[in-house]
Amino acid sequence: MTQGVAINLDRLLGRITALGQVGGLPNGGCARIALTDADKAGRDLVVQWMIQLGLEISIDGIGNVFGLLTGTEAGPPLMIGSHIDTVGTGGWYDGNLGVLAGLEVVEALRDAGVENKRPIAVAFFTNEEGVRYSPDMMGSLVYAGGLALDEALDTVGIDGTRLGDELQRIGYAGNAEIGAHRPFAYLELHIEQGPVLEREGITIGAVTGVQGISWTEYTFKGVSNHAGTTPMPLRHDAGYCAMALAGFVRELATRMGGTQVGTVGRITLEPNLINVVPRKAVMTVDVRNTDEALLAEAEVEVADFAAELAEREGVTVESRSLVRLSPVDFDLALVNQIEQAASARGFSVKRMPSGAGHDAQMVARLAPTAMIFIPSVDGISHNIREHSHPADIEAGANILMEMALKLACD
Amino acid sequence: MTQGVAINLDRLLGRITALGQVGGLPNGGCARIALTDADKAGRDLVVQWMIQLGLEISIDGIGNVFGLLTGTEAGPPLMIGSHIDTVGTGGWYDGNLGVLAGLEVVEALRDAGVENKRPIAVAFFTNEEGVRYSPDMMGSLVYAGGLALDEALDTVGIDGTRLGDELQRIGYAGNAEIGAHRPFAYLELHIEQGPVLEREGITIGAVTGVQGISWTEYTFKGVSNHAGTTPMPLRHDAGYCAMALAGFVRELATRMGGTQVGTVGRITLEPNLINVVPRKAVMTVDVRNTDEALLAEAEVEVADFAAELAEREGVTVESRSLVRLSPVDFDLALVNQIEQAASARGFSVKRMPSGAGHDAQMVARLAPTAMIFIPSVDGISHNIREHSHPADIEAGANILMEMALKLACD
Repeated sequence: MTQGVAINLDRLLGRITALGQVGGLPNGGCARIALTDADKAGRDLVVQWMIQLGLEISIDGIGNVFGLLTGTEAGPPLMIGSHIDTVGTGGWYDGNLGVLAGLEVVEALRDAGVENKRPIAVAFFTNEEGVRYSPDMMGSLVYAGGLALDEALDTVGIDGTRLGDELQRIGYAGNAEIGAHRPFAYLELHIEQGPVLEREGITIGAVTGVQGISWTEYTFKGVSNHAGTTPMPLRHDAGYCAMALAGFVRELATRMGGTQVGTVGRITLEPNLINVVPRKAVMTVDVRNTDEALLAEAEVEVADFAAELAEREGVTVESRSLVRLSPVDFDLALVNQIEQAASARGFSVKRMPSGAGHDAQMVARLAPTAMIFIPSVDGISHNIREHSHPADIEAGANILMEMALKLACD
Repeated sequence: MTQGVAINLDRLLGRITALGQVGGLPNGGCARIALTDADKAGRDLVVQWMIQLGLEISIDGIGNVFGLLTGTEAGPPLMIGSHIDTVGTGGWYDGNLGVLAGLEVVEALRDAGVENKRPIAVAFFTNEEGVRYSPDMMGSLVYAGGLALDEALDTVGIDGTRLGDELQRIGYAGNAEIGAHRPFAYLELHIEQGPVLEREGITIGAVTGVQGISWTEYTFKGVSNHAGTTPMPLRHDAGYCAMALAGFVRELATRMGGTQVGTVGRITLEPNLINVVPRKAVMTVDVRNTDEALLAEAEVEVADFAAELAEREGVTVESRSLVRLSPVDFDLALVNQIEQAASARGFSVKRMPSGAGHDAQMVARLAPTAMIFIPSVDGISHNIREHSHPADIEAGANILMEMALKLACD
């Protein structure tokens, strides 16, 4: 009945390209930071496409947009979604692919004359990137009940603006209730944003869940001293402690293996002079694991080592948690179906966790959820060089189509 | 004959305080950066004192100032000197003490009716601090023949000015030939600028030489990657390499022991974001030793480890030498005399190297040279909190007096 329905790659790439022009940057890529004029223009374009496809538009209080295709039967929809906001030097694919592939699935079903029994909702969530307003994945977090709407609207951005005011200003403060269209199942097609699929020559990632994320800021305070006149045993070197902790984070991640990763991406020394022992060092530690117990263990090991270093060096150490998200497991039945669909279509497929955060991990609180990954060229994202090959885009969108056929049309 | 001549502490402290007002900062300390208006005002005040003491003023082409007290016999002078320029947040003592103690020795000798056989020159050298014009210790380096006068005058400062123009502007481009008053011996009284004397409860440091200094900048270049999606084995983390090298520098200095010190005071990561593996890291390594062979060995070990790290991580590493000064040994006979003079006066005394650079290390190329250290409270200098206790200042100036009696008056 539903065999042989395929997406139209040129049409999908056409929409990706058209949306990429909105907030387009001189050397490629685009900037549509949440709730800016560029975001409004991008939203307007996608909503226009939704309307052209006959979808019924609803917008909730945090600005999440849903385009609903009625089914021949009533009931909760299959939801296909992602986000269309980008970072300041974003690419065309991160988020956008998942939303526009959802529209393509709807249009391809229509072209093939396939009627969906179950409703299908194509959704994009507000402020997934968290560049201007923290936290990231905010729209889906509010949608899933993890953050109160009022609190979200009162968020003050890095530019001093209030989120709720900006949402009003761009015309996307909607009336639909939070949690509207609570889905039967949620699917998100996304670029991997990492190097694994490309490196292993695999087309489809059947995403098993999202790693738990722990971001901690450590501040060491010691004593500023002359680098020539202060014997080593008399030093209280805050910079040394921070850099030694960075070494430990690498050693820990390597020792733990599995999905454990650890990164020190940011460090600031004071006074940051060649010949002065640093009096202060502020650094961040990013550790992630798909297993909550292992993630917690990694956090404790880092904290213990920081305390030990500080005591040995005679400096103080303080830490504060910046972000803490537990790992999320996706729905195993859906993961199996994605894997089977990929194999049936002749694509190589690999089960893998996501190392990055996605709206899917929030929606997973409400409904069975899974994600489909396709390879990122050189593993690059959040960069104007972000790219995925058309063949991989086509493969990913077709797996999404297969899942829609199975979940909404059979 | 020359027994019992002592310096007048109140007079010396009075001059230190008066000079400290020139370029004085609101919360204490002073700023007389080389060849600024404040430096000119400080120079004018010290020259006025020299003239009042009957010293014959001569100024050379780089602005070094000499006040000569004729002796009863002709011949090369005993030179007592240091510098009066300061860093931007300087104290009252660094440099100034050595110059003003020289004036106090001259005045105390006159008060005591002691005639010097040998001439005595009190000197201050231009731009010891090197804040505005590089290198530091420039005046004494030119004086000792280590840097051509023309080259020094053509130095462009961090504010874009040409040193020679600024020297003319403040009226201190003199006519005395470079190397004038080549000394019979050179003595410099200075604050330790480190914690050793205070910590050990010792009043006088008999300085045996100056540590060799090696400053190297290391630049690691890797690949910027997502901290969540990039498995540890696929990373090319420039930041990790830099921070691991900092750990090695500490380990090396501790392992080598003796006078070896090693410091990483400056590091900059790009893009310096929590969740991005750094693509670039620039850091400095400061290593010092009193022994040239050991210093060279430390440099090689650091460079080898940096190369090894870079290869293992799949990043590139480049290094450039910023400063390289060989260790300087002071005159052993003078060091012995300082030690004996301190003991004879009942002061505790310790032989020690200087971890910081001083004009004395340049003048040591021309004449037998030594330095006298007194304790720095909390080891602090280059800071408005720089302080030395009056009793220690008196002790140090009296040892300088003893040396002047011995070397110029006996």
